[in-house]
Amino acid sequence: MAPATPAGEVSGTVHTVSLIGGGPGAWDLITVRGMNRLREADAILADHLGPTSELDQLCDLSTKEVVDVSKLPYGRQVAQSRTNELLVEYARSGKKVVRLKGGDPYVFGRGFEELEYLAHHGIACEVIPGVTSAISVPGAAGVPITQRGVVHCFTVISGHLPPGHPNSLLDWDALAKTGGTLSIIMGVKNAGRIAEALIRGGLAAHTPVAIIQEGTTQAQRSVRCTLDTLGEVMVSEEIKPPAVYVIGEVAGLGQTAVN
Amino acid sequence: MAPATPAGEVSGTVHTVSLIGGGPGAWDLITVRGMNRLREADAILADHLGPTSELDQLCDLSTKEVVDVSKLPYGRQVAQSRTNELLVEYARSGKKVVRLKGGDPYVFGRGFEELEYLAHHGIACEVIPGVTSAISVPGAAGVPITQRGVVHCFTVISGHLPPGHPNSLLDWDALAKTGGTLSIIMGVKNAGRIAEALIRGGLAAHTPVAIIQEGTTQAQRSVRCTLDTLGEVMVSEEIKPPAVYVIGEVAGLGQTAVN
Repeated sequence: MAPATPAGEVSGTVHTVSLIGGGPGAWDLITVRGMNRLREADAILADHLGPTSELDQLCDLSTKEVVDVSKLPYGRQVAQSRTNELLVEYARSGKKVVRLKGGDPYVFGRGFEELEYLAHHGIACEVIPGVTSAISVPGAAGVPITQRGVVHCFTVISGHLPPGHPNSLLDWDALAKTGGTLSIIMGVKNAGRIAEALIRGGLAAHTPVAIIQEGTTQAQRSVRCTLDTLGEVMVSEEIKPPAVYVIGEVAGLGQTAVN
Repeated sequence: MAPATPAGEVSGTVHTVSLIGGGPGAWDLITVRGMNRLREADAILADHLGPTSELDQLCDLSTKEVVDVSKLPYGRQVAQSRTNELLVEYARSGKKVVRLKGGDPYVFGRGFEELEYLAHHGIACEVIPGVTSAISVPGAAGVPITQRGVVHCFTVISGHLPPGHPNSLLDWDALAKTGGTLSIIMGVKNAGRIAEALIRGGLAAHTPVAIIQEGTTQAQRSVRCTLDTLGEVMVSEEIKPPAVYVIGEVAGLGQTAVN
């Protein structure tokens, strides 16, 4: 008999999970490789972001089991551990398993955590990158994340924790001074405090900002303002997640794109 | 007769160019929308990056004209203006035109410049985002650009100009202090000077670095080192463009991904 792995499984059976970045929202902004894996899959464990609501455009769902892991009970923390367990259970059942995420799996997507959990349980994980909303959503609203002669870098920031939060790993003073574009995701609630921190760090109060809600989808809506009005505009325009905001000179460029 | 536009064209005829991000290199890491436009195209003006060498995997090339705009004569600056002119010429000839770029059109890709040039000539431009090499290439080598509890931001930097260059728009002192991952593209030649500038700015000399050449392709090769050895490793390992290097704690995480 083959030796058991540390996770108690008989070795020799190779299970693989495909961890796929589904892109910013529009169904056809997933990669071709991602679509092909969806077509081959027996089970799809999906978040509510990305192309989930239009999965039927990408593959025949009648032959597949779709599990909405965004709605697992007991809150976010428990949900992640339950998602991890489900991935292992489905993979061990011999099913071809896709874990579908919004955006890119490694852009604040817990992709590496899931990969490590699977590896620890002897399950190989293929990671398929996706188009990140941090770049593509501004683009869909006519805002290029870079422009020659204007910026030589851009920073993608999780706005989940407000400036000054004890668990924050960000230096807002430094972020105010990079010289590049800032693209903030998961930061609707903290927009006002983030703007204040950046202005305190030296970023000009009149720096252009573009806010884009539900970018690349039919419901896309965008608003332009300046850094000093970001907090109030977010409230007065009733911006709701998912939304991205871009801070920097590129947010002041013309809106000529057809998307 | 319909009035002429400023560019001398009779209005009423709408020409459109699709400006597509082809992704990091592997042919099937283009988006589904990008592939569909390639299939519909009469003419494809392509760079040497992205899926160009495997275009036949994505569409039937026998019915299309493929123009390699990466090899236009007279150097880079003239080549861009010639590319712009060609885009207008092809679009006005009534052809369905795709402009295929590597990565994402807006990540140091001159996408917005081409869009503006086309708009100025009365030609609409659809921009289709792509998977950027700045995120996906590290991912393909097992390096997640973010990891929960480790970083809350990452910065993508063009390493085209060395620190201290009069045209540089970067503040390397600030970049050394963001607290996040740094992903540098087009920076092979300047790696040593960039590492020095970051260490001078306060980033620890032993910060992990991963260098990945020709990521996501069959020729992918990666090397890990630390910030203080980056310059010499780039030379001793004979790293050639296109290459990405990632600086930060995430570059020290385990290599468990199967890609």
